[in-house]
Amino acid sequence: MDELARIGARDDGGLYRLAFSDEDLEARSYVEACLREVNAEIRIDAAGNLFGIVRTGRPGPVIMSGSHTDTVAGGGRFDGSLGVLAAVEVAAAVAAGAGHGTFIAVDFVNEEGVRFMPDMMGSLFFRGDLDIDTVRGIRGADDVSIGHELDRLDYAGSDDLSDFDVDFFVELHIEQGPVLESSGQSIGVLTGVQGLKWHQITVSGASNHAGTTPMQDRRDAGRAAARLIDHLYQLTEEVDGLRMTVGSVRARPNLVNVIPDRVVFTLDVRHPKPDVLDDANRQIHARVRAADGEFGCEVSIESLADAAPVDFDRHVVDAVADAAATRDLGARKMISGAGHDAQILASVIPSGMIFVPSRDGISHNVNEFTDPDDLVAGADVLLGSVLTLMGPGTTR
Amino acid sequence: MDELARIGARDDGGLYRLAFSDEDLEARSYVEACLREVNAEIRIDAAGNLFGIVRTGRPGPVIMSGSHTDTVAGGGRFDGSLGVLAAVEVAAAVAAGAGHGTFIAVDFVNEEGVRFMPDMMGSLFFRGDLDIDTVRGIRGADDVSIGHELDRLDYAGSDDLSDFDVDFFVELHIEQGPVLESSGQSIGVLTGVQGLKWHQITVSGASNHAGTTPMQDRRDAGRAAARLIDHLYQLTEEVDGLRMTVGSVRARPNLVNVIPDRVVFTLDVRHPKPDVLDDANRQIHARVRAADGEFGCEVSIESLADAAPVDFDRHVVDAVADAAATRDLGARKMISGAGHDAQILASVIPSGMIFVPSRDGISHNVNEFTDPDDLVAGADVLLGSVLTLMGPGTTR
Repeated sequence: MDELARIGARDDGGLYRLAFSDEDLEARSYVEACLREVNAEIRIDAAGNLFGIVRTGRPGPVIMSGSHTDTVAGGGRFDGSLGVLAAVEVAAAVAAGAGHGTFIAVDFVNEEGVRFMPDMMGSLFFRGDLDIDTVRGIRGADDVSIGHELDRLDYAGSDDLSDFDVDFFVELHIEQGPVLESSGQSIGVLTGVQGLKWHQITVSGASNHAGTTPMQDRRDAGRAAARLIDHLYQLTEEVDGLRMTVGSVRARPNLVNVIPDRVVFTLDVRHPKPDVLDDANRQIHARVRAADGEFGCEVSIESLADAAPVDFDRHVVDAVADAAATRDLGARKMISGAGHDAQILASVIPSGMIFVPSRDGISHNVNEFTDPDDLVAGADVLLGSVLTLMGPGTTR
Repeated sequence: MDELARIGARDDGGLYRLAFSDEDLEARSYVEACLREVNAEIRIDAAGNLFGIVRTGRPGPVIMSGSHTDTVAGGGRFDGSLGVLAAVEVAAAVAAGAGHGTFIAVDFVNEEGVRFMPDMMGSLFFRGDLDIDTVRGIRGADDVSIGHELDRLDYAGSDDLSDFDVDFFVELHIEQGPVLESSGQSIGVLTGVQGLKWHQITVSGASNHAGTTPMQDRRDAGRAAARLIDHLYQLTEEVDGLRMTVGSVRARPNLVNVIPDRVVFTLDVRHPKPDVLDDANRQIHARVRAADGEFGCEVSIESLADAAPVDFDRHVVDAVADAAATRDLGARKMISGAGHDAQILASVIPSGMIFVPSRDGISHNVNEFTDPDDLVAGADVLLGSVLTLMGPGTTR
């Protein structure tokens, strides 16, 4: 973990390993070297996903584990990296004689989606949702395409895993939230990922001089947006477990003495239960409709993203819970609030996840921290889960 | 007006004559050429203010009139320019034989304060609030100093008006608000300028992942800011004539799936009566204090600007009212909602202003428009006012 955390680190310790950058490739190459050390068979696909295959020679299922090594701008050293390096350690254990069947460690590209959207791109490509031409044609805000960066860095390969039928996927990750730390437990046994809806809400009024325009003549998009945001947030007091965030707000022209004619804000809405999420979404739309016309402004809502809640596979959940219990580690069943590669794979491979605590719930930040004991506990539970899933009789 | 409106115009017709730019100098040189045509004595001071002096040779007071020719980015063709060109026309009339004493047309630099703060810089320099070293040392957001631009453009002169004791100042300007248009009147007789307070309010919370952080563990600066903005705006429903605007809002990090740890917004507050404005300001501070701690966030308030209401001089107000009445023009007494050079000069020179209507109250925009008949009416009232003030027996 210490060695990997040096790659792309700036002075304050924050990591800059944006997908398809020089630093990102350097991190992936570090992981590749680690896998070569344990004689794993290396494969790199056309999008740049890295696989390290270890065959036991004994009959058994194919188990895959891993995460990502790209980071946000100024990210922490644990997000993604923990899951990849723990999978490398599992590969080492399997190469040293543990388990049955085949183990595949994976480092998925561009999980963060900072420069190039969408996020979780590597797992989406692996699942078959994106073809390689689509991936290569995607451009960042700087108008550079992924294809250009793949070629520039000699980043991509021509391999695939079409000769494998992966039986289970399990991913170790930091929680990126405060739940485990609050409860004093080391291991989260993930039963699923909450559903997510992203909206963009636009409030349109009229731009006028702040000094000369009487209040009754105004169509102040900022005032209308503030009232609506407050009203939307009140939903979280009415619906148990609903999480809502207005993360981004942009006012136009955004000058101290000009009434904004347009305010655009985003709304991130999450809940683990599909029916509750859908019902909350209907209420959001109703509140947006009710706000239309208030303070003389028009309000519209547009969907930016919509991910249904994911339930993880019972076998994987049980294997993780058993591995934690066997090791006498404090564990709790929980759902993931954030998106992860495992949720993408879950629709095609029986999947599950393991969480370890994040201090103060902080992530995507230089202050991201997990206690070394928890890192080891998480990796140990991952190994135990993989070996359980590998055991004779556990193929699907 | 048509000729001046070509200088700094871009494709959509919006004007880009930011103070101390090439286009700004070109506009000022156009005005200078107009003044030379009527044999005015040209003076340019160290900050770049342009004066055109016309002496009648007959005893009488010194009357100054003018405005500014700089614009905001994408500004209109009437704001400021009208007052300068009308003053040029008055200079022409005086040069042709009208009036007594001396008339001085003025084009003040940097009234808008877009690239270089503060606004109304030229009149502040003329009043003596800013010395030349201070002006030259002011830097824009691009870190270029005014001194650098003055030298680059050979913009400044070395003249001053220390040999004059100006008796009255009167400025013609577009209203930049909807009042005259709504009432169907052509002339606003300004009795003063409303007071203004600008605040910057900072809401500080904690940045966390939108998906993983339960609502009760959050310190969401965006949510706290929205509630506070809504609460502040409610003051305008309680205090008659109070104008409030939250024009600028910046959230950090401003990402869809991250809870903002900081939201900074501005509050523009105006009222014509000093006691009402001060009382409203106390209520604003009380509401900010009451919001401190809500949603786990800290709230602080900082003053960015504070201008007391200005009362214009009775002689100038009467001269403007008489000039409008003599010409049978629909007129109303009113206060200015916006800041103007006349309010700066008012503390050292008996001053007044004339407004003409702005269609839809729009200004600082390519859609700024005033009917040609109103432009002529305004210029004619300016001429009448100046001649009245020049008449024997009107020196202060």
